[in-house]
Amino acid sequence: MKIRSLRLMYSFILSITVATAVFSWKSPSVKASATPQSAAIAHKLTPPVGKPISVAFVLGDMATVIDFAGPWEVFQDAGGPDGMDHFRLFTVAASKTPIRVSGGMTVTPDYTFADAPAARIVVIPAQRGAPELADWLRHRDKDADVVMSVCTGAFQLGKAGLLDGKQATTHHDYYGQFETSFPKVTLVKGHRYVQSDDVIYTAGGLTSGIDLALHIVELYLGHDVAQKTADYMEYQGTGWKD
Amino acid sequence: MKIRSLRLMYSFILSITVATAVFSWKSPSVKASATPQSAAIAHKLTPPVGKPISVAFVLGDMATVIDFAGPWEVFQDAGGPDGMDHFRLFTVAASKTPIRVSGGMTVTPDYTFADAPAARIVVIPAQRGAPELADWLRHRDKDADVVMSVCTGAFQLGKAGLLDGKQATTHHDYYGQFETSFPKVTLVKGHRYVQSDDVIYTAGGLTSGIDLALHIVELYLGHDVAQKTADYMEYQGTGWKD
Repeated sequence: MKIRSLRLMYSFILSITVATAVFSWKSPSVKASATPQSAAIAHKLTPPVGKPISVAFVLGDMATVIDFAGPWEVFQDAGGPDGMDHFRLFTVAASKTPIRVSGGMTVTPDYTFADAPAARIVVIPAQRGAPELADWLRHRDKDADVVMSVCTGAFQLGKAGLLDGKQATTHHDYYGQFETSFPKVTLVKGHRYVQSDDVIYTAGGLTSGIDLALHIVELYLGHDVAQKTADYMEYQGTGWKD
Repeated sequence: MKIRSLRLMYSFILSITVATAVFSWKSPSVKASATPQSAAIAHKLTPPVGKPISVAFVLGDMATVIDFAGPWEVFQDAGGPDGMDHFRLFTVAASKTPIRVSGGMTVTPDYTFADAPAARIVVIPAQRGAPELADWLRHRDKDADVVMSVCTGAFQLGKAGLLDGKQATTHHDYYGQFETSFPKVTLVKGHRYVQSDDVIYTAGGLTSGIDLALHIVELYLGHDVAQKTADYMEYQGTGWKD
């Protein structure tokens, strides 16, 4: 009986310890959704040695132009006009058939989901998506440094189940729809971007993607390079510094 | 002799009147270059009745993505998410061959300079240009409401001679080169955009094009629609209001 009591006591202590650990582990996200200013779990990213950081832009029908063009310009210009190509950019879609993006512009993808090279960064703008996209994103979540959505691109991450139990944001007009569609996700409102876990980041609407991309540049290459990029772009927003 | 004297007097008075008129007509631009805050010769633009405002985006090799994508998004979103299509957007280039724009994205133009429909607004991003471009721009300057450059797109307007005797701006890294290339143009520094005459507007570098496009939306559709567009885009810059 004594042994049993001891076992029970140990079991009780263990439960308390585990519960405390789980609570501690979860507390940053709980705290973050309550006080969004501390939402970012910032950490440094290490660029590959001797080669540029590859960035895949996922396109689909009606992909919103500024959602991919904003981050595209940031990564393209990172480092300013000194000719250093820190990033290599490419587009990827379900097929190489030219895509009508928002407003009717025609963009031809460089790669398909099947033949795209590995990417350190994956950018998902608002778009109609494709049946293969969710599965492709789940694989990228395992081998990329960064998987970032812009605007309602967050819905594609949500559909892939990659935001469950995490915090995220999206375009302000779609807050309600997002909460209804993804009840397991903690929506953070009024932020330029939110870091969901070590790999996933979600930006707010449209131009917010510029701020998130500048933040990613800062994580890889430091504040000075990010500031130089913003200055070169004559970008007046400061949301990427939050 | 009396008649001749009278004629001379009339001729003298006429000369003085014309000279005064010319001076008065030129004085806003002279004044503006001295005090850049009053650089804009703002005036209202009238949208066509019963049809959208057509916007031509001039593409050429290495066209800078954000230079056309920023204004593209503004005109596409003008009026916010209420489904009203105030603007109709299309791309135009020397040929319909797919173009590698900056960073390597592939965009296929909708029209060539030869077959493009009339446009109320023409947007010229930074690009390598084409031999036919200068002549095409000179024609558009006669039949468009707005011909606007973004970034070093101003060099294409300069080459077409459309900025001679006027004020203009461009990307801050290219101020020196611009002044050397176009000594007849008054360069205005440190502005998001400058109105050169009744039709021509020049924006500063890269993201400045967003502000100029919002300003054009305001001229056509009023401040509230422009503000609604900026809000929808979650755009934090306020340079378009200057």
